[in-house]
Amino acid sequence: MNPENNVPELPDLTAQWDAVEAEHRRLANIRMADLFAADAKRAETMTLVAAGITLDFSKNILDAGALGALHGLAKAAGVAARREAMFTGAIINTTEVRKVLHVALRDRSGVLEAGSGLPPGTMAAERERCYAFARKVRAGEWTGHTGQRIRAVVNIGIGGSDLGPAMAYRALRIFAIRGIAFRFVSNVDGTALDEALEGLDPATTLFIVASKTFTTDETLTNAKSARQWLLASGAGEAGIPRHFAAVSTNAKEVAAFGIAPENMFGFWDFVGGRYSLWSSIGLANMIAIGPEHFDAFLDGAAEMDKHFRTAPAERNLPITLALIGIWYRNLFNRATQAVLPYSEALSCFPAYLQQLEMESNGKGIRLDGSPVTHATAPVIWGEPGTNGQHAFHQLLHQGPEWMPIDFILPVKHLGKFPDHQTKLIANCLAQSSALMLGKSAEVVEREMIAAGVEPEEARRLAPHRAFPGNRPSNTILVDALTPARLGALIALYEHKVFVQSVVWGINAFDQWGVELGKVAARGVEAVLRANAGSSVSDPSTNRLIANIRN
Amino acid sequence: MNPENNVPELPDLTAQWDAVEAEHRRLANIRMADLFAADAKRAETMTLVAAGITLDFSKNILDAGALGALHGLAKAAGVAARREAMFTGAIINTTEVRKVLHVALRDRSGVLEAGSGLPPGTMAAERERCYAFARKVRAGEWTGHTGQRIRAVVNIGIGGSDLGPAMAYRALRIFAIRGIAFRFVSNVDGTALDEALEGLDPATTLFIVASKTFTTDETLTNAKSARQWLLASGAGEAGIPRHFAAVSTNAKEVAAFGIAPENMFGFWDFVGGRYSLWSSIGLANMIAIGPEHFDAFLDGAAEMDKHFRTAPAERNLPITLALIGIWYRNLFNRATQAVLPYSEALSCFPAYLQQLEMESNGKGIRLDGSPVTHATAPVIWGEPGTNGQHAFHQLLHQGPEWMPIDFILPVKHLGKFPDHQTKLIANCLAQSSALMLGKSAEVVEREMIAAGVEPEEARRLAPHRAFPGNRPSNTILVDALTPARLGALIALYEHKVFVQSVVWGINAFDQWGVELGKVAARGVEAVLRANAGSSVSDPSTNRLIANIRN
Repeated sequence: MNPENNVPELPDLTAQWDAVEAEHRRLANIRMADLFAADAKRAETMTLVAAGITLDFSKNILDAGALGALHGLAKAAGVAARREAMFTGAIINTTEVRKVLHVALRDRSGVLEAGSGLPPGTMAAERERCYAFARKVRAGEWTGHTGQRIRAVVNIGIGGSDLGPAMAYRALRIFAIRGIAFRFVSNVDGTALDEALEGLDPATTLFIVASKTFTTDETLTNAKSARQWLLASGAGEAGIPRHFAAVSTNAKEVAAFGIAPENMFGFWDFVGGRYSLWSSIGLANMIAIGPEHFDAFLDGAAEMDKHFRTAPAERNLPITLALIGIWYRNLFNRATQAVLPYSEALSCFPAYLQQLEMESNGKGIRLDGSPVTHATAPVIWGEPGTNGQHAFHQLLHQGPEWMPIDFILPVKHLGKFPDHQTKLIANCLAQSSALMLGKSAEVVEREMIAAGVEPEEARRLAPHRAFPGNRPSNTILVDALTPARLGALIALYEHKVFVQSVVWGINAFDQWGVELGKVAARGVEAVLRANAGSSVSDPSTNRLIANIRN
Repeated sequence: MNPENNVPELPDLTAQWDAVEAEHRRLANIRMADLFAADAKRAETMTLVAAGITLDFSKNILDAGALGALHGLAKAAGVAARREAMFTGAIINTTEVRKVLHVALRDRSGVLEAGSGLPPGTMAAERERCYAFARKVRAGEWTGHTGQRIRAVVNIGIGGSDLGPAMAYRALRIFAIRGIAFRFVSNVDGTALDEALEGLDPATTLFIVASKTFTTDETLTNAKSARQWLLASGAGEAGIPRHFAAVSTNAKEVAAFGIAPENMFGFWDFVGGRYSLWSSIGLANMIAIGPEHFDAFLDGAAEMDKHFRTAPAERNLPITLALIGIWYRNLFNRATQAVLPYSEALSCFPAYLQQLEMESNGKGIRLDGSPVTHATAPVIWGEPGTNGQHAFHQLLHQGPEWMPIDFILPVKHLGKFPDHQTKLIANCLAQSSALMLGKSAEVVEREMIAAGVEPEEARRLAPHRAFPGNRPSNTILVDALTPARLGALIALYEHKVFVQSVVWGINAFDQWGVELGKVAARGVEAVLRANAGSSVSDPSTNRLIANIRN
């Protein structure tokens, strides 16, 4: 550790990477079916359970030897010490010189808050302020400028101030209060706000403007247009405080907007945007599902936190998931990770994970300023099953290059059509099984001939209808998609990302990569608005600007 | 050509691939900024326009030499002849022994229909049947069993029977009739139907069941539950025909369901699922935007078809887009293609393209049954801008491995907040510019010191705040997202996919890769329903089944 700037000395992991590479060479051409045949207990051994979540990672191209080498890598990288540094409030976000304590937000016992340096009870008090506000809105005690209760909550935020709340709302919709519509606006494209406001009555609409700095361009542009929309309805400036709340720390700008200080809810610099759902940023969710369910959501995450912090590495879900990801990203050189929730309610989970993983670990520079030695975050992508089966699963099964997949399956259906659930479960399990088992051209040809196809035609078509198989995946069972389990599921992926960042030696908690585009956008906007001939950057962009002007 | 089964002789492209590889070696380490510096006309030369769509492909790591080699590859692969074969109704889907004539659906002149073998006017007549139905629903002349007009249309379909209609509805929402809600149900997860029915009145709800065979498991499961929902409201069996229409060719099953023959709308075996939006599958869209706008949608696609068929390869948008994709997929070995529409209305376009590209070209076997010699379809992924900037653009800018990007920007805003549009445009242009230009650590360090940061701290942080740049992208301007332009945009990508399939020597029009999972799902479902101990497949799956039962 360099005490000046908290940057840890990065260990030399050459020997550990060599060991993992040796395991990869050993296993690169093995069939998973053979691994199962060689070990009757494989499925049992390679299943882990914590916080209502079951991870079956037996359908992967690895065995005890490879896992051992991967755990050796994690150990040598200092995962345990870095994890402890996070939980105890060390400044592990070294490029922004900040602590990383979103875990403290979900520790309702208050123990982890100690690492933050805040006076004890600060977090609980802020949460209670949010809850009190949420209770009033839910009960109809909070009223708009005409005295009517709130019928629609519109969350205006972007990035972590949008993806988390929107994803969690969608996932827990069945727990949401009826009689209040919830909408989420992020894009600066006017269509986003336009559609969000469709059918809403200004007199019964509450806006939550979520921006830590209260200067985020998209969010403020949308908030100002929303404000105009409200004023155009005759609410008057005096009506603004009845229809706007803020999640921010910029009291001055919030007040200038017309939002009352008591309706500004804060969080702290040790809570990064993509880890902020657990804070006041979850205000829309607190209104939707109520404080009790939100407490359960926090508790579920805390249960996973405890597991991550205390379970042995070999039985540790986040560490195992992280190492499997590293195995495919760095050893098999797979550039993508598919995440396929078999759950309509988890429709927005892949988009949420895109930010969590790609903004956290889409980095090319290590903590010490040197270039990374290995590829970092893969592209995360996916759509809910069974939809994807009728879209891109063709490539998953028969594309020449396989990729790792996480299947996520909430087992118990909580809605009105529980008899659909057996089909949903069957499809999820069948996909991972079919991907692994495959089907040879010989078997296909034999079956076709048995079905009456001419032998020559059967021989011609068999290669097209065959499946190479041996394609790996994880299956993550969630007993039911309750607030607690959603909390645990998110925390599982958060910690997975953190473990990977430690192995790669990067900072998962900054996002300098978004800055250049922001600055460039201001430049292009100025040129567009000036409608002048001045050029901004490069010949292509200048020509596009000219083209757009015409 | 083997006359027996229409399989073309695949040309030996070794020399052409060698030439492209030589170009890649020449350009692999070049900076795009140098290419611009060397050619003052680069931006102009590398911009193509057709059907209201402008493709600027100058921000790519290629030049005239590389393009020449790529065009040589396409030429030798026989793109022109295969294209003509498609347009004239040859059996180019050789594994299913079918023609490929979705292009005929949008040729309202009827000329291309000749290749189909259908009696002249068949397609127009079927379209007119759909239009007549759509007009009745739009005008309130079509009524439910209580005599009330239709207030909600629920499209039940999956894959091409869902992604196309849902994407186009979302994209053209501003053109949609008010007073009718449109919802799209695909997932077998009961939550999908549950949410789609929320707030709907059975007496004013019309279901469109879209399944060519009328046996698609998800679609029929949802349709049967919708039918129950309607019956539970007291509609009676006699009410079914007032609330259900079908897009199908299975008259027997459609009738058994209770749908009147006159409300079944068909299409033909030369229209693949993912190319079917132009057919009766677009019924929900015809109701939403009306026949006139749907005609414009077809005409826009036909305009791109004409361009694709007649423009010289070097000025041909689909061919150029296809070759750039091949350049990155096969020469730079990039496994993904990001598609980033700067348009909230195009939110569903990446998911639509996932099916179009990954189901079409996610193949490992060539037309002649041999394994592919090169990687095929990349993973397509993306979210609308500006949202993505606050999510995964970190990785695009600073991740160690860049990937190709298509920025899609409808220039003119058609909604109520046109003043947001300047910001949206500025952000889109700024991203591609910043990705290309980057910013060196030296410049960052100098700026930080000038801003008052201690030199040592500036030196420490500069690598984290620097941008490698030289990251390529296409910019696709659409003058405005009208029905015609959306048609052209979709056709552009359809033909891009087709050209790539010809170069790779694969069949873009089958999807055998979805079959194994379907069969396996039936097996798992039977075991789950029998609740017996019989095992189905592999130890992991059997253990998961046991786990789920408990």
